[in-house]
Amino acid sequence: MTGPARAAQAAVIALDVGGTAIKGALETRDGVVHRRIDLPTPVADGVGAVLAAVVTAAEELRPAPGDLLTARGAGLIFPGVVDSSAGVARFSANIGWRDLPIRRLVSERVGVPVAIDHDVRAAGLAEARLGTGRGVDEFLFLAIGTGIAGAVVTRGSVVAGASCTAGELGHLPVHPSGDRCACGQLGCTEAYASAAALPRRYLAQGGAGPVRAEDVIARAGRGDRIAQRVLDEAIVALGRALVIYTLVMDPALVVIGGGLARAGAALTEPLRDEVERGLAFRPAPRIVISDLGSDAGRRGAALVAWKALDEHA
Amino acid sequence: MTGPARAAQAAVIALDVGGTAIKGALETRDGVVHRRIDLPTPVADGVGAVLAAVVTAAEELRPAPGDLLTARGAGLIFPGVVDSSAGVARFSANIGWRDLPIRRLVSERVGVPVAIDHDVRAAGLAEARLGTGRGVDEFLFLAIGTGIAGAVVTRGSVVAGASCTAGELGHLPVHPSGDRCACGQLGCTEAYASAAALPRRYLAQGGAGPVRAEDVIARAGRGDRIAQRVLDEAIVALGRALVIYTLVMDPALVVIGGGLARAGAALTEPLRDEVERGLAFRPAPRIVISDLGSDAGRRGAALVAWKALDEHA
Repeated sequence: MTGPARAAQAAVIALDVGGTAIKGALETRDGVVHRRIDLPTPVADGVGAVLAAVVTAAEELRPAPGDLLTARGAGLIFPGVVDSSAGVARFSANIGWRDLPIRRLVSERVGVPVAIDHDVRAAGLAEARLGTGRGVDEFLFLAIGTGIAGAVVTRGSVVAGASCTAGELGHLPVHPSGDRCACGQLGCTEAYASAAALPRRYLAQGGAGPVRAEDVIARAGRGDRIAQRVLDEAIVALGRALVIYTLVMDPALVVIGGGLARAGAALTEPLRDEVERGLAFRPAPRIVISDLGSDAGRRGAALVAWKALDEHA
Repeated sequence: MTGPARAAQAAVIALDVGGTAIKGALETRDGVVHRRIDLPTPVADGVGAVLAAVVTAAEELRPAPGDLLTARGAGLIFPGVVDSSAGVARFSANIGWRDLPIRRLVSERVGVPVAIDHDVRAAGLAEARLGTGRGVDEFLFLAIGTGIAGAVVTRGSVVAGASCTAGELGHLPVHPSGDRCACGQLGCTEAYASAAALPRRYLAQGGAGPVRAEDVIARAGRGDRIAQRVLDEAIVALGRALVIYTLVMDPALVVIGGGLARAGAALTEPLRDEVERGLAFRPAPRIVISDLGSDAGRRGAALVAWKALDEHA
């Protein structure tokens, strides 16, 4: 070798593990993605198969010798009850984990320090540091996808709660005598307003399928009365959830993310009206669509990795 | 004078200003009360009269020359929208203040530094530092009196929110199509479960008056069916509010204070059952009666004063 070797640039492996896909990236601190991977989550094959797929994704993302990058650590995020201090997946219905010491298991196999966190709380962290919530001390990040969950941000930090389950806005009893939710409770927000609920409710009310949530919203915009009713009911449910959040936490801002955020103004405009109607004695917080979009999870996973590295430096 | 003078001990003036009474104390840092005062709040006589009464209370509490105490500062707490950073009473329906720079006004007249805070948030601070919440990072202090309000505690600190109105648990829409509340919203917690709502609802359903809230609870215990129904409805409303809070903030503990806390187990036992029924997929937090009782406000006002003095020392 001639001449001095160039120093390798530090990077982290960001892994967002969901019920259908494992999305990963190798990124430097400036947020530049140097490699990407997207694998199906083999939930049907069991706990061991999902773990093996996570390890495969991490290994695929590791820098090759010629990359002039070095993987300093990994950030792994997923839905469920995530105990980030203990490094344990307490429970994740979507990916089949229960009391799994996932931080240690992945770290041993991949050979870098691993930090874990809840997917929506990590996305909320990304919104707070890099996105629409930057500089706002008090806000809610609400992810509306197949399920609905929130990241509670106060004094600029994301709240995990006493048992790592803060932000369950998808399961607020917005219709206390309403439809039974898959969780066992009655009238939960996500039984009316998730990306899974919209097509299910549209078909149940006689709408023609197959449809996705975005189709229901688009059809409402074109005058489909069943679609409009289903969308209206979703807005009522989301509006009540945000009224409740506003009364409890007094946020300055609500940032909407997740797949349904792609509906944009078709979602936020009626939602703003609904929240204003529901609050009699105080103004509503601003309600906006996330500007990180579908990158919020990946950016959050990377931040979780960097944060852990900085704290142990 | 013969011999060296003894150094005066530092004390603060604690003032809890409510819609009916101004309760004050002169206390040392150990919480020992050296003087007390209790005056009616002259709300009907207007803003100036209430301010004058607050100043009178503070002056009555000042140490006399022989007391060997010195008043270092004052902590003033009251209901409404309290901007403690700016020192301004933004709005208090109960005592008639609106955009009043109360910190400066009282400080100028009494001649000591004054700190202000929201009465229930100050009581929550007392619970966190000295009471049932000591050592618990994540909890709710719920004051059930003429109105209902909460102090949201996360990571050991009380949340004020973006516009100083966090913790409005009395106005959660627990019955979204229910009775209209005085605030203008429908189905608020306090329309069913406050110390004002219990007798009002008992009389409206045909119960014999006059009664106070504690009488309604006592009559329910003695088999009065109207009283039992009114109490049951209050428990449903409070249960929903606590289910909502638990899903949003994941507390380890709920501490019940305010006048209705005197009902003790007659309140907490059915309330625990109701909260457990409302939560399908997670355990309920512990629900206990405050051990500071009616001292929480006064202790909180003193803590607010000491905290401001320590921060400016």
